[in-house]
Amino acid sequence: MDVATRIEDALADTVLLAEASGAPPRLAAALRHAVFPRGARVRPRLALAVAACHGDDQPSLSSAAAAAVELLHCASLVHDDMPCFDDAATRRGRPSVHRAFGEPLALLAGDALIVLAFQALARAAAAAPGRLPAVMLAIGDGVGVPFGIVAGQAWECEPRADLGEYHRQKTGALFAAAAMAGAAAAGAEPDPWRALGEHLGEAYQVADDLRDAVEDEAALGKPAGRDRALGRPSAVETYGLDGAVARLRDLAEAATASIPCAQGQVVLGGLIQAEMRRLLPARLAQRAA
Amino acid sequence: MDVATRIEDALADTVLLAEASGAPPRLAAALRHAVFPRGARVRPRLALAVAACHGDDQPSLSSAAAAAVELLHCASLVHDDMPCFDDAATRRGRPSVHRAFGEPLALLAGDALIVLAFQALARAAAAAPGRLPAVMLAIGDGVGVPFGIVAGQAWECEPRADLGEYHRQKTGALFAAAAMAGAAAAGAEPDPWRALGEHLGEAYQVADDLRDAVEDEAALGKPAGRDRALGRPSAVETYGLDGAVARLRDLAEAATASIPCAQGQVVLGGLIQAEMRRLLPARLAQRAA
Repeated sequence: MDVATRIEDALADTVLLAEASGAPPRLAAALRHAVFPRGARVRPRLALAVAACHGDDQPSLSSAAAAAVELLHCASLVHDDMPCFDDAATRRGRPSVHRAFGEPLALLAGDALIVLAFQALARAAAAAPGRLPAVMLAIGDGVGVPFGIVAGQAWECEPRADLGEYHRQKTGALFAAAAMAGAAAAGAEPDPWRALGEHLGEAYQVADDLRDAVEDEAALGKPAGRDRALGRPSAVETYGLDGAVARLRDLAEAATASIPCAQGQVVLGGLIQAEMRRLLPARLAQRAA
Repeated sequence: MDVATRIEDALADTVLLAEASGAPPRLAAALRHAVFPRGARVRPRLALAVAACHGDDQPSLSSAAAAAVELLHCASLVHDDMPCFDDAATRRGRPSVHRAFGEPLALLAGDALIVLAFQALARAAAAAPGRLPAVMLAIGDGVGVPFGIVAGQAWECEPRADLGEYHRQKTGALFAAAAMAGAAAAGAEPDPWRALGEHLGEAYQVADDLRDAVEDEAALGKPAGRDRALGRPSAVETYGLDGAVARLRDLAEAATASIPCAQGQVVLGGLIQAEMRRLLPARLAQRAA
């Protein structure tokens, strides 16, 4: 089974849990809307690529770890889109969850997705429960306090925030969690993979800031120009457009260099270069060339 | 150490994680506001009482399970109080989290508390990882889809809801999770404890409905008369005042009868009777006598 199918199957299996007879059907529909159709699935692909580097001898657990990371990413999108944060009407080219189902169900769908991530891990862990604590810690610390994505998002509510810390927590933390959980699911030490995740996360955040600044809503599938409109810290504000493009390239190189195994450097390094080409908006790529 | 101290210590340990240097301080303050000062801590007491019935030979794990259940309860209160649900200005006699810290931090604090529950379990599981999946499943299923408290809350967003199903999921599920997680943390089968939790949960929900109907905001520490004002299903609406009092007593008896061990029937049965006396508003107790 190819990686993309494996990820979609794992996600479909977990979301199916919400559709049991006797469960509230609109909540199940909101969960499905939040998770499908697929986004880029970058984080679960990273988790599975790292697990593969270590032999991936417990594929049920690594699939669950990949699904858990993506469910938590989807949860953060649902909650970030709500009126009290970004107030985004669209996501992936469709209405955001609160626009499609109302604010109460968006709030609950995000909560349910967070719990579902851990339910998926628990269900998959029977064959290798000894690995479960490390997988959970990698993922929990990537999402929660003190330095996970929830903490990163909370910097938007502080009077002062350091841009590096904000990005590291808001985006880098879940990438680090994906890489580390993939390692832990395969029985390997998670810590050597942290740097890859953090560099990659910051790279995606810089790319996101660049696209927010120069692309329109049709290209993004969500509202454009939000950082500037909402006065949020962004790499474009800090470094300027050309500086942010240079930063993106530096981060991609640092990510590749940090991969703690030679085979991984070749396979993952190639993926990273392809992703960076995909993410850099066309007119910026021309300008930088 | 007495049970109350053990619960407060376990909760304090977990909340402390949010206060690491480099973490957003207002989020940490919002978490602390949501968890302290203590409420009745009924669910963690139930978890530890059940663990004690089975010897409680992994007290770190049972303490973490008790703390996790309470953190998830607190998370549900923070999110339920938000403007898109109950729009409650007060809780436990103080401003609700969104009134004290704003809606964005209330949303994030609830999310962080959910994750923190699972981080606490992962941190405590090193000594007995084989028990972690069952503890997590009991707790995850009590909170998430298809039949946990998030699903229960979601019935408020459906055009039709069955009152029994609504209460069983909205309140009973987390009581069942508490009892079952206590058993699993002590290495026992969780399922025989489900009925106790469900009866007890429905009893607390009926008691809550009664107090919402007949007490004032000063006595409740939160707004009164909300079920009627918001047109929510409630036991008082369904059974009338006297009928709801009778239902409360039946449920307490059924809860005691369902306890799957003789020693537990004596100890837990006594606790249940004392709780029911504490919860029944004075003027209803006189009327029923």
